[in-house]
Amino acid sequence: MRTYRLWISTPDQQGLIYQISKALLDEGFNIEENQEFVDKESNLFLMRTEIVGEGAAQVLEQKLSEVLPDTATIQLIPLRKKNIVVLGTKEAHCLGDILIQHDSGELTADIQAVISNHTVLGELVQRFGLPFHHVAHDDCSREEHESQIVEIIDALSPDLIVLAKYMRVLTPAFVEHYAGKILNIHHSFLPAFVGANPYKQAHQRGVKIIGATAHVVSDDLDEGPIIAQNVVHVDHSYTWQAMRQAGRHVEKVVLTKALELLLEDRVFVFGNKTVVF
Amino acid sequence: MRTYRLWISTPDQQGLIYQISKALLDEGFNIEENQEFVDKESNLFLMRTEIVGEGAAQVLEQKLSEVLPDTATIQLIPLRKKNIVVLGTKEAHCLGDILIQHDSGELTADIQAVISNHTVLGELVQRFGLPFHHVAHDDCSREEHESQIVEIIDALSPDLIVLAKYMRVLTPAFVEHYAGKILNIHHSFLPAFVGANPYKQAHQRGVKIIGATAHVVSDDLDEGPIIAQNVVHVDHSYTWQAMRQAGRHVEKVVLTKALELLLEDRVFVFGNKTVVF
Amino acid sequence: MRTYRLWISTPDQQGLIYQISKALLDEGFNIEENQEFVDKESNLFLMRTEIVGEGAAQVLEQKLSEVLPDTATIQLIPLRKKNIVVLGTKEAHCLGDILIQHDSGELTADIQAVISNHTVLGELVQRFGLPFHHVAHDDCSREEHESQIVEIIDALSPDLIVLAKYMRVLTPAFVEHYAGKILNIHHSFLPAFVGANPYKQAHQRGVKIIGATAHVVSDDLDEGPIIAQNVVHVDHSYTWQAMRQAGRHVEKVVLTKALELLLEDRVFVFGNKTVVF
Amino acid sequence: MRTYRLWISTPDQQGLIYQISKALLDEGFNIEENQEFVDKESNLFLMRTEIVGEGAAQVLEQKLSEVLPDTATIQLIPLRKKNIVVLGTKEAHCLGDILIQHDSGELTADIQAVISNHTVLGELVQRFGLPFHHVAHDDCSREEHESQIVEIIDALSPDLIVLAKYMRVLTPAFVEHYAGKILNIHHSFLPAFVGANPYKQAHQRGVKIIGATAHVVSDDLDEGPIIAQNVVHVDHSYTWQAMRQAGRHVEKVVLTKALELLLEDRVFVFGNKTVVF
Repeated sequence: MRTYRLWISTPDQQGLIYQISKALLDEGFNIEENQEFVDKESNLFLMRTEIVGEGAAQVLEQKLSEVLPDTATIQLIPLRKKNIVVLGTKEAHCLGDILIQHDSGELTADIQAVISNHTVLGELVQRFGLPFHHVAHDDCSREEHESQIVEIIDALSPDLIVLAKYMRVLTPAFVEHYAGKILNIHHSFLPAFVGANPYKQAHQRGVKIIGATAHVVSDDLDEGPIIAQNVVHVDHSYTWQAMRQAGRHVEKVVLTKALELLLEDRVFVFGNKTVVF
Repeated sequence: MRTYRLWISTPDQQGLIYQISKALLDEGFNIEENQEFVDKESNLFLMRTEIVGEGAAQVLEQKLSEVLPDTATIQLIPLRKKNIVVLGTKEAHCLGDILIQHDSGELTADIQAVISNHTVLGELVQRFGLPFHHVAHDDCSREEHESQIVEIIDALSPDLIVLAKYMRVLTPAFVEHYAGKILNIHHSFLPAFVGANPYKQAHQRGVKIIGATAHVVSDDLDEGPIIAQNVVHVDHSYTWQAMRQAGRHVEKVVLTKALELLLEDRVFVFGNKTVVF
Repeated sequence: MRTYRLWISTPDQQGLIYQISKALLDEGFNIEENQEFVDKESNLFLMRTEIVGEGAAQVLEQKLSEVLPDTATIQLIPLRKKNIVVLGTKEAHCLGDILIQHDSGELTADIQAVISNHTVLGELVQRFGLPFHHVAHDDCSREEHESQIVEIIDALSPDLIVLAKYMRVLTPAFVEHYAGKILNIHHSFLPAFVGANPYKQAHQRGVKIIGATAHVVSDDLDEGPIIAQNVVHVDHSYTWQAMRQAGRHVEKVVLTKALELLLEDRVFVFGNKTVVF
Repeated sequence: MRTYRLWISTPDQQGLIYQISKALLDEGFNIEENQEFVDKESNLFLMRTEIVGEGAAQVLEQKLSEVLPDTATIQLIPLRKKNIVVLGTKEAHCLGDILIQHDSGELTADIQAVISNHTVLGELVQRFGLPFHHVAHDDCSREEHESQIVEIIDALSPDLIVLAKYMRVLTPAFVEHYAGKILNIHHSFLPAFVGANPYKQAHQRGVKIIGATAHVVSDDLDEGPIIAQNVVHVDHSYTWQAMRQAGRHVEKVVLTKALELLLEDRVFVFGNKTVVF
């Protein structure tokens, strides 16, 4: 008996669920959990199903591709622990939260390596006996810097790359190379602030809530499809440093939440948004 | 073309989705929205489907009952505006919120009447041109009081009875008479307080959050299956009256949220809990 | 015995609290509640004190102005029910929430009038026996339209003007005329959206939280000093209309919260931000 | 120049702020931050002031005791990094959060030791080069077990003892020995559950929010004065294990928040509640 997570995305049409459930039944798979969503604007049918059975995955995929529209996308993901690579810069709160959960077995993923453009996080990573790669960004172009990182990542072939407060802008080429596999966390405020030190700006503006947004990275670093968001209330008595500290607590929880969802294959990206089942 | 909401609850077994989707397809119904949940502890399969078609409801129900286990429950609910009766006592915040939404067309329900054991809410209800029934509880037993209310309600045959801060304890007979149709809102605190004036107790205890719970009424008035909950942060500067006022804002929003869910047939009660799709 | 709310803002210097508390004691006023805040960036000392006494307000003000720096601002606000004028357009949720609270005596303010550029809210307002002024904006310039509104407002001399989803942009002249007296509520999203129908944009973008911001109106309609903010969680299953409805519930609660704070003289605006005591 | 945090609690009477601010001025101390609260039920005046000056602490205390009522309590706390001892059992989430913040310098405290009745957390603690004491509770009475722990703690004289998911019930003698110095975190639910595995009970009951409460430990382990609380939304799709995991994220953030407040001397306990400035 083997468990798979089946994701189907296809133009909506009558009888899809019948066709899919028939194929699963015929090939000896039982449905353990099933969720569907139809995006009416784009007429897109999305389905995530946890299936268990002794049938052959290849045969099931073949069968599904026969009964579904030609433009359907079928992903049959075997249930296994995923591998992740974490990128950080200097701040420890998000990385640390992941390390602790990894260490206590709460994270259903293996951390293959941590990469940083600074050295400061090295000691923390090594405490947990994990590989730490310092890739300095001084004296090299953005492309040269990234090519060193790509080399490390590609040698590990991770399922996901987690930007745990990695503060470098990524090139479109890098993002394209790992399309749909990069998770980022960034602070968010109402109203929004651009430019340096957003916490100083938020403080200057007297915001009453501070938020964090976890998203899949697309071309624009902080603008990809959103997976999870949360906020915390602040007030005038917070210095900007206290706001940043409050923000860190939200960031780590939101990043961890989004990571859990990705590790369970619960996130489907379409257009610039997500369905999170 | 007619729209129905189909709720199926049945012991889980292989092939259910196939059997149901086949019946729908055969009888000419298209699935607009579909959600399933399997409660593994009780091996219960729950499914809520919005279906559209020209087929005969009766035929579909017959067909489904043939392919599903004998113990399955099938509810085929035609899409129509529901009727509600609201019960209140003296406080206006929950009732008022429902009246405003009803008045502006945001509530997909018709308010047939408002009943209260006091007169104070009468003027507010009459402002909106709705029937108000004052049923005094003085000089009569609980059973006599309720029998007057039942008479009013039964003449209207509402789909739902909303307790909008109705402060009388209901008899098991009353609850049984409207089983599964009564929605209640009550304040909640961490930790919990029993007895008179819970806000005074909460204040005395220095709680930092105040909550509200909307639930279906079962035997124990405040202990039925939970539909929605929310909280608000408070601090030591709140008097108990300020806590009560903060609580009122949460109560009205949570009650309205739960009411919306019930009006869209999104709540399924089993055991002492709910699935909210 | 009379109660006042005393607001002092002054450049910070040693001995301020001593000087102020001495003046209060000397003039026979007792401190019932007291809050201070020093904004270190601007070296601004802010203090809000509820004082009770039989002394003469004028004498106290004179005494305070003698002991405080010349640039200090002293406001001695007698405790009394404030008057408000509400401006709306078509949506009833914020206005309705205020009307209900006013009607049940929970709002410590008198509503003098409701003004709208549309007629649709008239019936609701009249249900509560309150004056409703329809000031059409067709066939007149923005200035002409506003001058009609100003005429109505100025005849009433309200303490506060509440924009309860009033959808017209205000001229700088209007804002200047009622500087610091206009309260607005607007939806907020992470990320921010500009232009028509922000809920459609937010839906298109797949946001996971929707917020509302209540603020004092300054030149830029939606960018004034923030008083209160809150959010609600949404997901992909929300249509943009459902997002708008969820947003309405947050908007009314946040607007009401900010209004309560203003009515209790708890908000002090400085620069583009607020201290909320 | 030296910074102190001054806490005064005294029966309320006219002129207190004047007397206190005069004493501070006379002894050469400047007020950097000041907060007051009067609990009207108990007529208790509470004041927390950050003061800076070159004066002698002893002289200031003497002066204050002269001008304040005999029953006043005066605490003059020099600003310094506090020492803490952490007690845990098996779960790593709260302890880990503290270790990470300690390691990155975000926690303004020194961790002197971690004590556990199990061995499982030892490796994690030792990764950070901190002393770990395993005090087994088998084969000894509760009193014997605690006396071993007391011996370790008393040798360190910490300012605070943090129960980071320490799952042993404490004796009244232990609590009394460290009165007001023990911080605990515990899960909370609406409604409340007693007995074994509250998450299983909460799941069975279908709660829609899960919370955490951080509090000072008084006689009754989970019922002491509350410092901070928060909740997270859950739904029927959460297994009890998923609820527990969601609860862990809230617990660690709430415990850390409460710890920060205690480290900044912002919590004052009176009766069974707190003022948090």
